[in-house]
Amino acid sequence: MEVMQVLHMNNGEGETSYAKNSNIQRKIISATNSRLKEAILNIMCNINNKNVLESIGVADLGCSSGSNTLMVVSEIIDIIDETSRKLGISFPELRISLNDLPGNDFNDIFRSLPSFFHKVKEEKGAENCYVVGVPGSFYGRLFPQKSMHFVHSSSSLHWLSQVPLGLGYNAMSSLNKGKLYISHTSPSDVINAYVSQFQNDFSTFLRSRSPEIVPGGRMLLSLMGRSSIDPTIEDGCYYQWELLANALSNLVSKGQVEEEKIDSFNAPYYAPCPEEVKIAVENEGSFMIDRIETFEIEWDARVSSNSLDDKILLSRGQQVAKTIRAVVESMVVNHFGNEIMDDLFSVYGDLVDDYIYKKKAVYVNLVVSLKCKE
Amino acid sequence: MEVMQVLHMNNGEGETSYAKNSNIQRKIISATNSRLKEAILNIMCNINNKNVLESIGVADLGCSSGSNTLMVVSEIIDIIDETSRKLGISFPELRISLNDLPGNDFNDIFRSLPSFFHKVKEEKGAENCYVVGVPGSFYGRLFPQKSMHFVHSSSSLHWLSQVPLGLGYNAMSSLNKGKLYISHTSPSDVINAYVSQFQNDFSTFLRSRSPEIVPGGRMLLSLMGRSSIDPTIEDGCYYQWELLANALSNLVSKGQVEEEKIDSFNAPYYAPCPEEVKIAVENEGSFMIDRIETFEIEWDARVSSNSLDDKILLSRGQQVAKTIRAVVESMVVNHFGNEIMDDLFSVYGDLVDDYIYKKKAVYVNLVVSLKCKE
Repeated sequence: MEVMQVLHMNNGEGETSYAKNSNIQRKIISATNSRLKEAILNIMCNINNKNVLESIGVADLGCSSGSNTLMVVSEIIDIIDETSRKLGISFPELRISLNDLPGNDFNDIFRSLPSFFHKVKEEKGAENCYVVGVPGSFYGRLFPQKSMHFVHSSSSLHWLSQVPLGLGYNAMSSLNKGKLYISHTSPSDVINAYVSQFQNDFSTFLRSRSPEIVPGGRMLLSLMGRSSIDPTIEDGCYYQWELLANALSNLVSKGQVEEEKIDSFNAPYYAPCPEEVKIAVENEGSFMIDRIETFEIEWDARVSSNSLDDKILLSRGQQVAKTIRAVVESMVVNHFGNEIMDDLFSVYGDLVDDYIYKKKAVYVNLVVSLKCKE
Repeated sequence: MEVMQVLHMNNGEGETSYAKNSNIQRKIISATNSRLKEAILNIMCNINNKNVLESIGVADLGCSSGSNTLMVVSEIIDIIDETSRKLGISFPELRISLNDLPGNDFNDIFRSLPSFFHKVKEEKGAENCYVVGVPGSFYGRLFPQKSMHFVHSSSSLHWLSQVPLGLGYNAMSSLNKGKLYISHTSPSDVINAYVSQFQNDFSTFLRSRSPEIVPGGRMLLSLMGRSSIDPTIEDGCYYQWELLANALSNLVSKGQVEEEKIDSFNAPYYAPCPEEVKIAVENEGSFMIDRIETFEIEWDARVSSNSLDDKILLSRGQQVAKTIRAVVESMVVNHFGNEIMDDLFSVYGDLVDDYIYKKKAVYVNLVVSLKCKE
């Protein structure tokens, strides 16, 4: 599987779209708002470069589409506006780069920009905002030399650049039988392959960003993670994949899916613990760690439901299933075919309901604040 | 009609798409290749700024989608590669901005970029190319201060920012009865409204670009035009609109279109003569004119047909109708509704066949080479 070709959040505005099923991701963005403020304030006050206050380069990596994309942009503009007023300067030239893989629905973002910026200009007098779409993988160079002051990424860096080496998407012999991700039953070879792919990828990510960011510039990265060093611990999103594997097994028993199909799928995904991120940053060497924090979000946390009907008719499990479907469907369809999707996520929703009934079900989110060395 | 909301080339890859019906525009791009070379060579050799050879900013305004978009990018990369070799320098950092209105199919462009750049990197060793999509009207600011060295636009600047003032899309009393654009029957008020809208728009365009382009930077603009000062002369694309009005009148007689609908539509379009462009550039004052040239292209000129079937089955008029449909349909649908489109362009194709049979039918294209004053 070419992750770059296959992975994208569900496009459009329909019932299974990411735009309508991304409340969790919205909640994560809200939860990191104080760190966002901190980072931008630091940049605007402390960078040893008089030009920074004239033109600021900002990027959102894995921007996706729908209201969350513009929520991040909006928060950044608000913070820069507030900070400019405090510093007694006019709103600076702001260059905003929205990045995602080429399969992302950039058309959707672009069509909502005119009314968004009309509002921004009226409310903040921010005339000098320039927004561009940048298609490409963040595991490689995206931006010109020293063009960025602040790089933000939310709910994206847990996606690896590829299925870990040796666990190929269509591997003849599956090491990770019946599973889609690291599990209690996974042999150490599987775990090591994931750990090593994460270290390689995260290091490539940092090495790609380092020449793009001005000295003293900052990154705020939030991604799915786990609190313990043990990668089979249940508190990660690990159990999300476990339940999806169980749902697929259920369809095997109904003759809707071939068992080998499950064996040959391994998600290009990794939820690291803080120590692993720390090691990757220190080994790469271009960035200093300000903070690495974790926080928990319930699986079925809602900021607000996009649809009143959903609140009434759907179980908590079915709600979770919609969130997960909007994120993983492009990949799962690519391997298992389109026909089983409705059944798969219906069974999955039931399994989530059972799980939530018995246990506290949370995602652990890592928030990493980094500063580019001077 | 909000031109920004309504105007876009036909999206996708279908039979009526711009991607499949843009051979004329492709031919125009090819025809200006020597001017493109001249402009880039001049920039790379003459700009008084040592940084230009390290990082070059290039924009294509009205980039559209389909193969023509990447054809322009490809030509620019080839020329920079060739010039770099001549100058004995390595391929510079190249920042390419692809601009069009927010309704353009940027997703289509972005999805074809990975394989395109894979090829570019293999063939030219051009590692430092960064491509971004910039949605917005070129009758306003698009890019940060002094970020561009070269701005290109082909087959776009004949679109006005709006229907000329006083000829409102839904004007109660139509001044331009039975016509869609300037015609022999148009009263002088109509002609004056078009001329004045063009002067305002072209001036706004230059004023918007001027702060974005470095001193000594260049623009190469090609657009539909006419050779004579008389705006009702037949050699412009004027007759394209005349025949489209006739086709609509034909549908009026069949009861498919209300006569008032034609009266209340005026195209946000203007094909200027060289003198008008000269006046606008001189009045605005930021740019020097290198050259203003005109060349002719036959209505049914083909570089190569995208479909062998078309060559055999379609008349020359039907071919022209497909080209025009791919360009104007978004606007025409918005006013006349979707139902009549097939009939309209079928009748239109017949009228074009009659016209071509009797007269030499050419577009006149203006090519404007400008230099930003130092």
